[in-house]
Formats: sequence, structure tokens, C-alpha cells
Amino acid sequence: MRWWGWGEDGHDVAIPEAATALLASELGIDPGAQRRPVGLDEVRLPDPRLPAPLRDRLAGLLGADRVRDDREARVTHALGRSYPDLVRLRSGDASSAPDLVLYPDSAEQVAALLPACADARVAVVPFGGGTSVVGGVEPVADGFAGAVSLDLGRLDRVVSIDAISLTARLEAGLLGPEVERRLAAEGLTLGHYPQSFEHSTVGGWVATRSAGQASTGYGRIDELVEGLRFIAPAGEIDARDQPASAAGPDLRELLVGSEGVLGVICEASLRVRPVPELRRYEGWSFRSFAEGCEALRVLEQAGASPDVARLSDEGETHLSMALAPGGSWTEGVLRRYLRMARRDRGCLAIVGFEGGEEDVERRRLHAASLLRAGGGLALGRKPGAAWLRSRYGGPYLRDELLERGVLVETLETATQWSNVQALYGAVREALRAALGERALVLCHVSHVYRSGASLYFTFLAAQAEDALGQWRTAKRAASEAIVAGGGTITHHHAVGRDHLPWMRAEVGELGLELLRAAKARLDPAGVMNPGKLLP
Amino acid sequence: MRWWGWGEDGHDVAIPEAATALLASELGIDPGAQRRPVGLDEVRLPDPRLPAPLRDRLAGLLGADRVRDDREARVTHALGRSYPDLVRLRSGDASSAPDLVLYPDSAEQVAALLPACADARVAVVPFGGGTSVVGGVEPVADGFAGAVSLDLGRLDRVVSIDAISLTARLEAGLLGPEVERRLAAEGLTLGHYPQSFEHSTVGGWVATRSAGQASTGYGRIDELVEGLRFIAPAGEIDARDQPASAAGPDLRELLVGSEGVLGVICEASLRVRPVPELRRYEGWSFRSFAEGCEALRVLEQAGASPDVARLSDEGETHLSMALAPGGSWTEGVLRRYLRMARRDRGCLAIVGFEGGEEDVERRRLHAASLLRAGGGLALGRKPGAAWLRSRYGGPYLRDELLERGVLVETLETATQWSNVQALYGAVREALRAALGERALVLCHVSHVYRSGASLYFTFLAAQAEDALGQWRTAKRAASEAIVAGGGTITHHHAVGRDHLPWMRAEVGELGLELLRAAKARLDPAGVMNPGKLLP
Repeated sequence: MRWWGWGEDGHDVAIPEAATALLASELGIDPGAQRRPVGLDEVRLPDPRLPAPLRDRLAGLLGADRVRDDREARVTHALGRSYPDLVRLRSGDASSAPDLVLYPDSAEQVAALLPACADARVAVVPFGGGTSVVGGVEPVADGFAGAVSLDLGRLDRVVSIDAISLTARLEAGLLGPEVERRLAAEGLTLGHYPQSFEHSTVGGWVATRSAGQASTGYGRIDELVEGLRFIAPAGEIDARDQPASAAGPDLRELLVGSEGVLGVICEASLRVRPVPELRRYEGWSFRSFAEGCEALRVLEQAGASPDVARLSDEGETHLSMALAPGGSWTEGVLRRYLRMARRDRGCLAIVGFEGGEEDVERRRLHAASLLRAGGGLALGRKPGAAWLRSRYGGPYLRDELLERGVLVETLETATQWSNVQALYGAVREALRAALGERALVLCHVSHVYRSGASLYFTFLAAQAEDALGQWRTAKRAASEAIVAGGGTITHHHAVGRDHLPWMRAEVGELGLELLRAAKARLDPAGVMNPGKLLP
Repeated sequence: MRWWGWGEDGHDVAIPEAATALLASELGIDPGAQRRPVGLDEVRLPDPRLPAPLRDRLAGLLGADRVRDDREARVTHALGRSYPDLVRLRSGDASSAPDLVLYPDSAEQVAALLPACADARVAVVPFGGGTSVVGGVEPVADGFAGAVSLDLGRLDRVVSIDAISLTARLEAGLLGPEVERRLAAEGLTLGHYPQSFEHSTVGGWVATRSAGQASTGYGRIDELVEGLRFIAPAGEIDARDQPASAAGPDLRELLVGSEGVLGVICEASLRVRPVPELRRYEGWSFRSFAEGCEALRVLEQAGASPDVARLSDEGETHLSMALAPGGSWTEGVLRRYLRMARRDRGCLAIVGFEGGEEDVERRRLHAASLLRAGGGLALGRKPGAAWLRSRYGGPYLRDELLERGVLVETLETATQWSNVQALYGAVREALRAALGERALVLCHVSHVYRSGASLYFTFLAAQAEDALGQWRTAKRAASEAIVAGGGTITHHHAVGRDHLPWMRAEVGELGLELLRAAKARLDPAGVMNPGKLLP
């Protein structure tokens, strides 16, 4: 991945002129702006401060070439991939860089190095794909003798596959595409497609309770965990594979979502499925966000949900259509059709079905009858295909927008159906108030549950002089509105640093104490990913 | 409930003569035996030993009539409803009786009384319906100044219902039938039907990770928890209602299944559904248990499972047909039909569908085609109806069998599909070896998951002179076989006292330490249900 952005070079996304014009008029940005990141050599790095004996001990445990403190290694492990992270990196600020990056080859090496770091009071930051958008992989080492980033990329084995029980035990460092490639060779799929899919890992997904774009059908990652191999400074927990149990509290659920703060997820046994014969994705139009939400609720509560269910609000629908390339079907036919049907101010939904041919057809027809009854207008497969093509495109586009001086950030929550519209309104208002008149606040529902849904907000404005301060103001306003409005502070981005101030509201003081008690037992020296999750 | 058995008087179950003869020949029992329980007056109770100031303090907090130490109150709270519990009660042994039984009216009273008990070093045993079959409600007060049983039966309010989000917040003491009656008034159902349904409570279900007979469709209770109000000696945790969250470890999952050891579940917000228009239950026959298991696996992994999926092995099928009343359809038509189809040595399955009429029909046909392809023979609705009529009958029948000097006990586990047959064989062998030649070891699958299934064993033998020793030997043999064979020590009965010795194998030493750390934080004096869950 590019050290200052997303993806590899040469994967740039073009913004159509119409969209540039729209952004210029709505946000007041200079359409010709071109803000380039500084060069890697110009990035400011703190002096390494790791105790030399520890470095030697670690090199002895892992091998000298598995212990790096060169500029590239340190810069690429300094921050995640949130908007403020990219703002900092592009301006040359890698002040949070670890002193050392470790590349263990095995869970056994992880088990050996954690006590070494604990003994030396050195902070350990587990690092998967480094795609956290909440500050989850940024070393925070105040009060420590230094910080190491624990890059798990070399833990990339498929440990075992049970094709009868449909489970696969995977090492933590496997990247999304590799997971799917390896499983596909056995006719299987995990079906976990977060937007970060190309650059995020099994361990990262489990550590952050990731939800993928198809999680409405395939289940959130936390619903897919059958077993875990978890290594903490105090020892190892081997949560054995089990389909279900009543043997007391579910300790898996204490480790899943622990964000590196309790220890390191080295292996996860995950529930998989046969590769679907067919993927069928369709577009639907609703007159309003409220109408579309209600239709999705009815669908889900009837047990008729598709595998992917997304609904953009009016603003997001409008912008996404503006972003369609000139001359494309979306830009041409669809736009005219919606105008004709008087739906051009409406909302676009994507519903996707995966599975056997017959099964997909049966489910699709069932869902269609409910969506139609709920006010939906079928738009056929083209919008679905377009969405599938661009499903991982957001972060590439963000690089492009940063180049033009746009603040672009996302945040998300979930709440009960009875509260969805109120929370939607409250967060939107809070963001608008924080960002001022010339801002775009967009939203979509990306995951539906029987009892509620997620809300995913994207907001854009002209980047202020104090870009980080501007971001902080907006983030705080939205987070306070979420907490006050009864939503969860995060539906699938995790807590990291950025959501820390709202964890008390989320789980209460005694809930925090419970987490601290778990940490004290597993990580007595407190070296695991300090400054995250627990205020 | 009868203090020495199950249900109310007058609800006796008749055992057909054919079954009596079968039991006599298989187990060698005396068919004319009639072992009556002792009278309530003859039950041996320990002297109450509670410090008088605590009693006064509790009476002051709850009101004098909410604090009982009469014979009936103490005996009915001395033990649960496992086989060894009933053996003890029937023989007049209530040596484990609490000193006092408390009947709080509200969560606030619970919050007030816990610190009072903690101050006085008196053990507190939360008590819902008292139907634990693993020793979960038996006071274990060695080293304490006494024990109180905390009867939550008066916490029986429906706090709120959200018909849009399909959730209901229920107080812990609500009994199964009352839950369904109250929800039905709003057109809703929880769909949670453990065999103990008539006498077990919301709080008990959540505290023990209960699974109901329809949990394949409706979900285990742990999958239905949207929020909790949990009161520990150290304070309260209000796990807010949320459809999903990525805000760190899921603390709900630490409280669900905590068996009164960490604190008291006072309210649970549970996911509910519309009352089904239709219930359709059918019988199917398979040539063997292995064939039936494989058919259920295919069904579940195709996403085509019914709401209820049960499959009896050959032995259980044989005995359940013998238990059918003389002259009934099962005893007559079905038996002849199976003989004709050369399936009379086979296995009976019950599959049940609940929902809208169209939906049930669609799912039923889909499932039928898969079951038929898997070797199943459709037996129509009569076996389904018969099962529905007798679904809560097991414990009544047990009273009857105890009367005749039969050891009858159940235990259960779950494992991956790839391990189901091996674990089934290992547990069966272990029980046979422990019980001797003249025993019946029966089994059924009662819950199916994508990755595996539960196995529920029933075993019968002539009661030995040392009935408790005989039971312990069998229980130990089965539990060791389960642990060695890769199963969970309990799929839905919980840990209580009886599974304590296998918790280390289940979660590991560090896992136990994590649970102990949570307990130390929530219950620093260690008064909450001591001697359960944590070795």
C-alpha cells in the first residue's frame, strides 16, 4: 500500500468533471487544486529509543531480518488509514512511528516476544493490514520505554479446512483476497468483504468485529468465529472450535473485538460456505430514505433479506450518480428513467443475492414482492453490477479528494429500527452544524438486523487550514449525537483511539472495569496496544 | 411444582404396559415396584444459621413477608431438578437448604440486598424456576456465614415492548407460559421452548444459555439477547439494547451464561417475532442415525433448516414408540407402515416449520426434497402432532420412572459435523461401560448449526442401592468421553456444580482466570452462587 494513502500506485480513480463541478459548487473548493503528499524522505520520524538489549533479544528470537527499523518500515506502521491519519502522513508527520517493526513467522514466536516486550515495558501494537480508520494501529507509547509494531503479515497459513463442518482455521495475517483464493481452491468462501477487503486481514477483522458488505447474509465476523488461538503476555487461550456451548460466559466474545489490547489473535477458525454458483445484484429505487428503510425492515423481519442490503439516502444517491462516468448507463439511461418515473430525487438501494441458482431465484422473487409492496421500483441488474465493480473504490477516491483539498470522512453506528430515523436526523444535524453550510452529509444503511440497522455517514467539506481541528470538531459532534441518540458508538469500525471518549457511555463505568480486570489478568504489564479501547 | 418432583399433582403420566414390560426386560427392574417419596414433614433440614442482624436488615429492605424460612420455602429452594436432586429429595435429604428465601419485588431491591449479604459473608443463590439439572440452584455455603436463595419470581413484569424493532424487555422472573401469554397479546412470540418451559424463567434461560426445542429456527437464548440489566454486589451494568456493535468485546456475552456467579440478571431485552400463522410438524424416518444426521447437515448447510429439527437414534426411536399409548396411531398405523417399509429398525426425525402459511409451505417443500434425497421417508403430520403434545412430558415421565426404581438421566453436548458420529459412539460406549449390560443409552440430535449439532443422551438402568454413586460413575464416564472426544461439556444445560470438574478442559486455565478476574471485580466478597461454574 502507498505509505501516504490507499492501494498501489497506478490505481488512481478519475473524478468525472460533473462531479468536480458539483463538489466545487457545494463545498466551495478550488477545482484545480493539487495537493501532493511530501516525499518519503521528508517525513519526520522520532529518534528510535528502544533499549538495545531488547532489540538484540528480539532479533535473537525472530532472526535479524525480522526486526526492522528502517524509514519505510517505521513510516508504514506509524498510522492507520483514517482521514486524520492521511492528513498527517501526507504532511510528513510520522511522529507516532514505532521504534521497531517485528515480523514474526509463527504464533510460537509471538508467544516468545510478548513477554520480552512486557519485561522491557515496551508497548506492542498488533498490526494486520494497517487499515484501521479509528487510530487502532497508531503506537501510543507515553510512559513506555518504546513501542514496537507487531506486523502479523507472515502468519499467512491456512492451518486446516473442515469441508464437512464448513470451517477453516486461518492464520491472522492472511489478507482478504488470499483468504478467498485459498478457500476457493476447496470450493469454499468466507464471504467477508469489508471495504478494506484488499488490504485487511483475518486477525484485523476478528480484533475489530468487522462487518463486511455481505454480512447481512454471511454474518458479521463475530458470528463466524468458531474457535480462536489467542496469545497474551500472560499465556495462551485456545478457544476450541465449537458450534455452540452453554459452558458459562462465552470467552470468545471477550477476545473478539479486543483490538490488540488484551493480546494477539494468531489464528481464527471461521465458518465458511460453498462458493455461490450465482451472484445476482440489483438496484431498487425508493421515494425517500424513510420509505426505503421501512421496506428493508419488513424484508428482514420476514426472513427474506438478501445477502447484501444497502440503501443510500437522497444525498448519497445524488452524489453517487454524479460520480458515474460520463456516457455510462447510470449517467444516461438510469438517470432518464428515474426522471421519467419521478424518482430522480429518491434513494437508490442495492440488494444482492448469492447462492445456488434456484435458491437465488426463489429468494429474489420473494424479496422483490416485499420491496415492491414497500414502494420500491426495480431498476434491474445494471446498478448492482456497477456497485459490485466499485465496491472497494471508496478509499481510492478518498486519495483523489484529499488531493483536491476535500475533507472526506466516514463514521457509522447502529440502532433499533424504531430509532433509525431519529438517529439519522440527529447525526446529520450535528455534522451539518459542525461543518457549516458548505458541506455534504451523506448516509446509507449497509447492514440490517431483525431488530435494527446500521447507519453509515460520509461527510465532505473544504479542508480548513487546521484540518485536524476541523475533523475533531465534526467527529466529536457526530459522536455526541450518536451517544445521546441511543446508537452504538461504532457498528463495525471499532473503538481504537478515536472512539475512546465515548466508551464510558457505551458500556458504563463497571463495564470498563470488567474490561480492565480482563486486561490486568492477560497483560499485567499493560504493554498491549496502550491508549486504545480502554479510556 | 411438587417439592419432590416435576409439575403439579394430578399431572401424572401413565406408562403403557408394553413399555413397562420392555423396561423390566431391558433393565431388570421390578415392574410392580412403587417407591414413594417421604412426606414433607420427614425431610431433614439443617438448622438455620443466618446472623440475626442480617435477617432483620433484609426484612427491613424487602418487607417481613418477603423473607421466609419456613419448611416449604427452604425445601423447595434446596435443590434443582436433576436426577440426583430428585433422588435426594425423595429420600428426605434437604441438607443443602438455604437458611432463608428472599422474594424481592424489584431490581432496586436486588441492588439493595446484595451488598447486605456481601457484608455479612452470606452466599446468595439466584433462583428462577428452580429447574436446573446441573446443581445450579443448590446452595453451597461452606466457608460462608449462611446462604440465602434469591427467588426472582416476583420480578414478573413486561417492562416494554418495541413492536417495530421486535424486542421485548422482560423481567427475570417471568415463567415461560406467562412470557408467551403476554407477548401473544401483542401478536408476538419469543419462541423459546426448553423442555422446562412451563417452570423455567427468562432470567434462568439467560443465565444458563438455554436452548429451546425450536432454537434451530428462533435462535438460542444467547442469540436473542439485545440488552440486559445486570446487578452485581459491586454495582449495575446496563447493557443497552443494540442490534450489533463493534465497540470492543461483547460484555453481554460475559453476563449471559454467568449462572448467578457474577451477579443477577434482573431484566433482559429479547428479540421476538410475530406469532406464526401456522405450525406444521412432520415425522420422517431414516434407515440409521448416521443417515439422518447427514440429511440434517445437508439441510442446515443449504440454509433450509426447519425451526425444529430433531433426530432420534435407533434406541430412542424404539423406546419412544413403545411408550405410545396402546391403540394410538403411532402404536398401530405407524408401526405397521414402518415395518412394511422395512424401516422398523430405523430412526425417527421430527421437523417443524412455523411462520406465514406461504412461507411454511415454501420452506417445507424445499426441506422435503433435501430430506428425501438424503434417504428420508415422509411420515406425515401425525408424528409431529404427537411430539408437540408430549414435548414437555419428559420430566413428568421421569417422576413415574423414579417411582419404579429406574435411574433415568440426561446429558448433552455439541460438536462439529465431522465429529458427530465419533463423539456419539464414544459417549454411548462410556455410558454402557459405566452402567453395565442392563441399561438403555438413547440419543437424539436436538439442535443443528451450520458447523455442527448437539447430541442429547438419555440413559436408563435399574437404580442401584447407592443411587448417587451409580449416577456419579455414569456422569463422570460420559463427561470424560465428551471432553476427550472434542465435545463441549454442555450444549444447553449449563455448568452448575455437576460440570465443574470439566471446566478447565473446556476453557483452559487462563480462561478460568479470566472468569475469576471478572468475578473478583463484580463480586469482591465472592458471595454470588459459590461452588458453581468456577472450580
